[in-house]
Amino acid sequence: MSVLKGACVIGQSGGPTAVINSSAAGAILTALDSESITKVLAAEHGITGVLSDRLFDCSQEDRRELELLRCTPAAALGSCRHKIRDPEQDDSDCRRILEVFKKHDVRYFFYIGGNDSMDTCEKISRYTRQVGYECRVMGIPKTVDNDLIGTDHCPGFGSAARYIATSMAEISCDNQAYGSGSVAVCEIMGRNAGWLAASSALAGINGNGPDLIFLPENPFDIDSFIEDVVKISERKKSVVVAVSEGVRDSSGRFISEYGSDLAKQKDSFGHAQLGGLASTLAAYVRKNTGIKTRGIEFSLLQRSAAHCVSGTDEEEAFMVGENAVINAVEGVSGYMTALKRLPGEEYHSEIELLPLSAVANREKPVPSEYMNKEKNGVSDAYIRYALPLVQGAPECETENGLLRFARLKKVFVK
Amino acid sequence: MSVLKGACVIGQSGGPTAVINSSAAGAILTALDSESITKVLAAEHGITGVLSDRLFDCSQEDRRELELLRCTPAAALGSCRHKIRDPEQDDSDCRRILEVFKKHDVRYFFYIGGNDSMDTCEKISRYTRQVGYECRVMGIPKTVDNDLIGTDHCPGFGSAARYIATSMAEISCDNQAYGSGSVAVCEIMGRNAGWLAASSALAGINGNGPDLIFLPENPFDIDSFIEDVVKISERKKSVVVAVSEGVRDSSGRFISEYGSDLAKQKDSFGHAQLGGLASTLAAYVRKNTGIKTRGIEFSLLQRSAAHCVSGTDEEEAFMVGENAVINAVEGVSGYMTALKRLPGEEYHSEIELLPLSAVANREKPVPSEYMNKEKNGVSDAYIRYALPLVQGAPECETENGLLRFARLKKVFVK
Repeated sequence: MSVLKGACVIGQSGGPTAVINSSAAGAILTALDSESITKVLAAEHGITGVLSDRLFDCSQEDRRELELLRCTPAAALGSCRHKIRDPEQDDSDCRRILEVFKKHDVRYFFYIGGNDSMDTCEKISRYTRQVGYECRVMGIPKTVDNDLIGTDHCPGFGSAARYIATSMAEISCDNQAYGSGSVAVCEIMGRNAGWLAASSALAGINGNGPDLIFLPENPFDIDSFIEDVVKISERKKSVVVAVSEGVRDSSGRFISEYGSDLAKQKDSFGHAQLGGLASTLAAYVRKNTGIKTRGIEFSLLQRSAAHCVSGTDEEEAFMVGENAVINAVEGVSGYMTALKRLPGEEYHSEIELLPLSAVANREKPVPSEYMNKEKNGVSDAYIRYALPLVQGAPECETENGLLRFARLKKVFVK
Repeated sequence: MSVLKGACVIGQSGGPTAVINSSAAGAILTALDSESITKVLAAEHGITGVLSDRLFDCSQEDRRELELLRCTPAAALGSCRHKIRDPEQDDSDCRRILEVFKKHDVRYFFYIGGNDSMDTCEKISRYTRQVGYECRVMGIPKTVDNDLIGTDHCPGFGSAARYIATSMAEISCDNQAYGSGSVAVCEIMGRNAGWLAASSALAGINGNGPDLIFLPENPFDIDSFIEDVVKISERKKSVVVAVSEGVRDSSGRFISEYGSDLAKQKDSFGHAQLGGLASTLAAYVRKNTGIKTRGIEFSLLQRSAAHCVSGTDEEEAFMVGENAVINAVEGVSGYMTALKRLPGEEYHSEIELLPLSAVANREKPVPSEYMNKEKNGVSDAYIRYALPLVQGAPECETENGLLRFARLKKVFVK
């Protein structure tokens, strides 16, 4: 183990999750306790905060508030969707990052995010190595979409899946209330990977699952969709459908774009602004079957529902943050702290280090063995995969009877 | 106390809530233990189940499943939206009800619902008295809208308010994640009364509330709405708006109908099918300010989120059901078991009996002292009123790590 003394920067990137702040807490609290790390800085809004030298000093925060990050949703440090230039083509971004790193003697960089964020890590890692500036770079996985490659699953997914399974069960009860025919179409996040829509099936274990599930991995055929709905509605009055926002037809066209045909809208607003996929499909069902329908978009809550966090997910999120720091201090650089599922009846996971270059910019779709034969539902293998990830609930602090989130002072360094 | 022996019928009516089944549990379990009540029948889908003689025998259910009703959302007995004819004009409905009552020797009728359901109760109570059939009729209050008159608040409201305050805080965090300008418009249930939209303000106590709240009690002006949004967006990047689905302009036109102008839709689908109020307002903001916006409809979950039930609400819901039976057995008839708030620092409530005729068909809007001067937010008095109602969380059973809802056998009587 080679000792490297210096400051660290911790940043968050990409879409919020209910536990990305738990990963931040894992990294920040571990870094604050480390003898090698001389200063713990957080980048405001991820890499854009490094580029603009907007870094705040975590040692100025109350320890209690940092611990409260474990139950705080979204992205408390601030997130961004910014892809830096590849230093091979244009090293201006990396030069600027190096300049800021040098200014604050930053020797550790921890970045919490998905595919694109691992790409940022990989570029910074490559660049600093090339120019001979010693800086240990670690990626910390995060995404509700669960589409990061190499890791068994991704922190953020379990909590989103718990929220979706819980909400789906409740919607399923509600949709049966009147005993008249009713179709509820639920739109769930996932442009290219259907892990989250699939998680709605977990509600079925206790008898309240959706009747149909459509993933973006399979071409979506509007006619066979209507046929499926009609077939089920002949058997039972309440039909509940879960569908990934990213479903496309065989020509590659998003089904959500069908809405503009339906509405015959020609103006500048387009379909997306007046109803998305859920309302489009609901309108199609109503038009073709006459059954009462309702489109429900799970929207932001599926990724930010702190009140429905999975305990397993929260602990793992903390662990990937913590272990990124522990490993970096011990000399590791250029890796992501992935999760490996251990064999055995009872669920256990451990940290596995994956090279950033093996993870960056790649996506993991739902494999076909996790779907049913008709491609309108999931298999038992998927349930066995996903169920352990939604277990437990963390003890979170309340104030006035409602969840109390971290309040950071964000004292910026000069 | 005059002893009256006979069967009872318990029914649910109107929109689902997260705790209407707790009221059913309160009534059913108390009735099963009563010596006066010879048989406990539940009407499938409320009064329509009486009219069609679809009654199931609660003594055939496992006691444990009946207890699980306390954590089961929606309407486990089945609900309906059916208004019976006034016997003064046309007594056919009441005659049929009487026929079914006589067939099963029904001497007690308990009906859980809102304004319309209290009207049903009142008609049945009046009719049976007129024809000299001894039957004790009790209304059990229920509505997320909180618009029942006479009662301090209504079972169902506290849980919906807890869900809304919780979700609003999470959306507020999510909307700040990127640090770029962003307006989130959240559409909350309430056609005529804004109690639920107002409850979003509870998130503000811990620092995560909406910036603007619009209730249907006040005329909604789209221009001053845009002005409000712009003013706030100059001060802070994230703007969060809570708005009742029923807001109307000064001419009485629903703002949700403005969507069809925006989309210039002339086809048979209309605005309601391709996006409601939230997406309409989001489109307006985008058009007039250029700021990124998102419309979020809280949809069914706000009324059916079993996982976010208020402990206070669940207990009171059980209590109004239980006390309806206790009072009826003791000789009371023609009343609703309302909730009265007791004076004092700490929150306590007790049952108060209100005549059905004083409650039926009337609505309670949010009074102006619960709003701010600008009518775009609530007052401290509203917070003091609503906060005690969202406190606590019941212990609910889980199976496979997810909520376990009641499974009723529903054995119908011949």
